[in-house]
Formats: sequence, structure tokens, C-alpha cells
Amino acid sequence: MKALVYLGPGKKSVEERPKPEIEASTDAIVKISKTTICGTDLHILKGDVATCQPGRVLGHEGTGVIEQVGAGVTAFKPGERVLISCISACGKCMYCRKLMYSHCVSGGWILGNRIDGTQAEFVRIPHADTSLYRIPDDTDEEALVMLSDILPTGFECGVLNGKVQPGSSVAIVGSGPIGLAALLTARFYSPAEIIMVDLDDNRLETAKRFGATAVINNADGNAAKAIMKLTSGRGVDTAIEAVGIPVTFELCEAIIAPGGTIANVGVHGVKVDLHLEHLWNRNITITTRLVDTVSTPMLLDTLRSRRLDPTLLITHRFRLDQILDAYEAFEHAADTHSLKVIIAA
Amino acid sequence: MKALVYLGPGKKSVEERPKPEIEASTDAIVKISKTTICGTDLHILKGDVATCQPGRVLGHEGTGVIEQVGAGVTAFKPGERVLISCISACGKCMYCRKLMYSHCVSGGWILGNRIDGTQAEFVRIPHADTSLYRIPDDTDEEALVMLSDILPTGFECGVLNGKVQPGSSVAIVGSGPIGLAALLTARFYSPAEIIMVDLDDNRLETAKRFGATAVINNADGNAAKAIMKLTSGRGVDTAIEAVGIPVTFELCEAIIAPGGTIANVGVHGVKVDLHLEHLWNRNITITTRLVDTVSTPMLLDTLRSRRLDPTLLITHRFRLDQILDAYEAFEHAADTHSLKVIIAA
Repeated sequence: MKALVYLGPGKKSVEERPKPEIEASTDAIVKISKTTICGTDLHILKGDVATCQPGRVLGHEGTGVIEQVGAGVTAFKPGERVLISCISACGKCMYCRKLMYSHCVSGGWILGNRIDGTQAEFVRIPHADTSLYRIPDDTDEEALVMLSDILPTGFECGVLNGKVQPGSSVAIVGSGPIGLAALLTARFYSPAEIIMVDLDDNRLETAKRFGATAVINNADGNAAKAIMKLTSGRGVDTAIEAVGIPVTFELCEAIIAPGGTIANVGVHGVKVDLHLEHLWNRNITITTRLVDTVSTPMLLDTLRSRRLDPTLLITHRFRLDQILDAYEAFEHAADTHSLKVIIAA
Repeated sequence: MKALVYLGPGKKSVEERPKPEIEASTDAIVKISKTTICGTDLHILKGDVATCQPGRVLGHEGTGVIEQVGAGVTAFKPGERVLISCISACGKCMYCRKLMYSHCVSGGWILGNRIDGTQAEFVRIPHADTSLYRIPDDTDEEALVMLSDILPTGFECGVLNGKVQPGSSVAIVGSGPIGLAALLTARFYSPAEIIMVDLDDNRLETAKRFGATAVINNADGNAAKAIMKLTSGRGVDTAIEAVGIPVTFELCEAIIAPGGTIANVGVHGVKVDLHLEHLWNRNITITTRLVDTVSTPMLLDTLRSRRLDPTLLITHRFRLDQILDAYEAFEHAADTHSLKVIIAA
């Protein structure tokens, strides 16, 4: 089969690989229908993710059809269409029983990281019963690909952790795919204000179309001042950090209202300054989270009821044999205006 | 009347002052029965609290008897015994209606800070109806003084924010009066482990008597290692920071389990390093809070039902004319083994 293989920092290629086989009784083999590329794949390609070694097939998102199941799989059978979660969950360990699937002791984020992933014709899915979701007949398969990772990430790490409420004020720092996923799902809860901050006017225009009530280009570094003005000096109830660098996290610290929550979504490579000398008495909360994908069933319901249209996030489409072009388009978003790309296997 | 007056950094004296008078219709004048000294008073005396200017009568804790009430006060009348909350709350502003009394726009922590406080024979209490609590007849007045600030602070900022649960593991970094107040109130929720960390063996002995399941003297800087060992490498579900310096906050970062909560209680003067490069995917929560004293009625109930004995925290007793000696004893805790001191007016 064809697969996109990571060959070490800066290197990748499309290679011919053997089709995966059942290794444990709880495995399923899935024939990929659609997959996509994540910002995390770019991190891997920079050599930032030590757990992902050269030779690995990348990808942790996608949909497909069950090809084969192990003897222990009872929820799925060959021929069924499935959504693949980016998080593999055994459903049995201490963390899974707390619904912290991202910390599953034999799963978590392993696809396209510790084991071969979805940017291929076939993928082996461990813990299939609790890591796959049956696809309802009437749903758009491209929309579903957005439910593998990006929408539950924006929703769980940003909106749920950030306690977005009706009438509340929300700032989302970072208007990339994850920030926009947080924006789309924040709207479930009818906040009064959703202020988007980015450095790219095109992405801010997209945010406006998606329902942002205000957008701020922080090229001049004045976003904090602008947000304090927009909120009558009070700050926002929820600040969602969707970039992952110190300056954007510190912006969240500067704009959070007393009693508010900073929900970190960004993947950070270095420490940040936490200004407890200002924040110790502000009754604030800071949360971190790797997506658990516990909200996938809920998000499937919002998709079916047309409360959510994730296809808004899709800008480009490719075939699997064009996946290197797909990486090009995704990597150079400022030029290509790409958000998420769909790759049909 | 006699009063302890702050005279600028490093300086204080007992002075003769005019008795306070009703200034607003919502004021009450309270004749002080018992008061105490708080770590925050020592911060003021170091010149760390810019809002507290020389000439101020210190103190924000105490009990007393209503001497006089303004025309707008309906919940109290002269002669009634009352507990004074360290937080004055109008009960009417946006923050008060969210039960964030500490952020009351015309109150908050003002006693012994922006207005004259309780280390005197009389004190003026603004917003009396919502800042005083009637004293039940059968309660120990010295115990009640501990409910003005220290117990709600340990309980709200540490135990409630830290989500202490039955069977959970708790570490309290700092075994001073506030850390010990957190320990006493953490026990309401029957955690499996309460690990106390300090540098003073005497305070750790006290923690053991108060119910700590393990105590660690961190003089050698090995507390993180010891706590990871005690928790089978997992860390604690709740880490309560009750000191207020970078090294103790970073200890909390090092020992927090996936899914856990760091509840900051300490008053910080400088920023701390937040190691998001390790914590971004750990599903943790960090909280800050200035005590709101919303739990005062609950704590009064625990006192009356003998679920809590705050007198354990009291080590020394003085008369108001000996208050300079009381400060000496409180300030040199390592030598005097003092925790809280009671001053009878």
C-alpha cells in the first residue's frame, strides 16, 4: 500500500509499505477513505516530537471502512464505515475510567506517532471498540474528518475547559484551524462576544465569517489594550490560547477578567512567565489538556442536527498520491490561504 | 481609644486614636472583643502593600459587639455579638452577585488596608449587613477569630479551589497558619493522603498532630522526589501552594498528577516559571483566589457541629496593650513556635 513516511527532521516521502495486520485481539484494520494533515504533523517533521521515530507512517485523523477485526472486537464488523479518533483508548485503565482517554496507559495519542498512522491506504487501530465511531448514513464524510482531532480539541481544550457561557465574553488567541474550531464550537453556548486575535488578516476575515464579533490583528502588539477597551476595562471571561508560544499565553494573562478562565490549547515547547504577582488575587483558573475525544459522540450529534458545519474549515482537496502537494499547501498557509486539507485515499 | 498604627515600612506603634464614627448608612461600629495578627500585616510592615498608607490602623480579623449601626443596617442591632469578615461586601455589585466578594467594587479587602482595621478598641465596618456574622451563643469566641480570614482562606483558596475529594491525594506546600488551615479543612472531604511540606520541623510536627498522613522537610530540596515516590510516580491530585514564592509554586508543578489541580493560596510578589512545555498536555488546572469568605456560614456550621477545632491554631494570647509583644511572638515563629496569636481588646 501507499503511505506517507516520516524519514527524520525535514524529510518525508510517499512509499510502498506492507498492509498492516491484526496484532492484538482488540485491533481493527481500517481501509482509509479520507484523511488530513495536522499542525502536529508539521511539528514532527521539524523533529520536535521525540516519540515519533523515522520510518513512521504519519496521520492521526480520518474516516474509513472496517476491513478486518480481531477476535476481541465486538462493536464493529467488516464493511462498516467508521470515524477514527486521534486518541486510542483502552476503556479499561484508571485514566480511561476517568474519561481522560488522552492519558490511557496503553493508548493516548499513539497513531502516527508511536505506531503507524492514517496517511496511508490502510491503518491498524488498537482498542478499536473504544477508539472508532460508527458513521451515521446521512453525514458528510469530509465533515467527519474534522471530528477526528481538530473539533474535539478546540471544543474540549478550549470551550469546555474555558467554561464558555451564554452572555459571556471570549477571546481566542490564534485564528488557525484549531482557533477556528474553538470559535465554531464556542458558538454552541451563545457567548455575547467572541474576539479573535491573529497576525494574518485572511484568517481574521475567515473568523468574521465564522461568527467572531470582533477581530484584532496584533501585528502592532496592541491586542491587550484593544481587548480591555472592548470589555470596558474588565477583560474577558474566557481566554483561549490556540498558538503555543509565550507571547500569546502572556496576552491571555493580560486580558483575563477577575473570575475568568485561561484555557490553553497550544502545544508549548518552552516555559512561559506566569505573572502571579498580578494574578494571585484575581480568582482566575488556568487549564491545560490534551484532547480526550470524549466529546466525539456529542459533536456527531451537533453535526447531524446541523448545529455545526465543519466543512467550513476545509479549503483544499487532494488524492493520496498527491499528498506531498497537500503538505505544501498546508505548510504555506499564509500564501495558499489553506485551513484544513482533505486527502482521499 | 488604643490602636496599633502602621507608620511606614518597619514602623508601628500603639497610639491613642479617636473612636470611629458612622460615615455611611450601611456602616456599623463594633467594639472589638478579640483580634489577631495575619501574615499580611507583616507584609504591610515590610512596605509590600502599596494600598496601605502610613497612619493606618492595622487588622482585618476579629470578633466584637455591635456598638452602633447606620440607618440602612437591618440585620444587626447594638449589643449583638458579631464575627468580622476580613472581606467587606456590598452584596449589590456585579462581583458580589457572583459571590466574588473579594472583588466587591466598594469593598473587598479594605479593613486594615484602605480603611482603619480591627487592632483597636473599636472599628467601623462598612456594608455591615453583608460583612458581619452573628455569633451563635454556644461557640468559642477565640475559635471564631480564626473564621475571619485564615480558615476561609485555606478552605476556599486551597481546599475548594483544589477540589479535594474522598480518597484523593493532597500535598500542602507550606505548614504555616494558612497551610494548617487548609489541612484542617481538607479533612472535611476525607482525602486518602495529606502530605505536608515545610522547612520547619516544629510546624511539620504540628501538621502531623492535625492529621497529615506524611510530612516532608524540604531543606534538602528533595520534596518532589519524595512525593512522587509516595504516590507511585503519579503525583498528587491536589497541590496547595501556601507560601507565595517561585520555588514552592514550581514544586507544585513538579508533583501534580495528570488531571490534578494546583490551588494557589500564597501571596506572590514576583512572577513564576510555568512549565507549559511539560504541562500543556497534562490536563491540569491552576487556580488563584483572594478569599471571598462566602464559606463563612458553612464554616460556622462545622464549628458548631465540632467537625472543626480552630483553637488548635492558637498558640499565644495577649492583651491589646501588649500588642507589640504579640507582633514579636508572631514574627519570630521559628523561635517562639507561634501559629496564631489572640489579642483581647
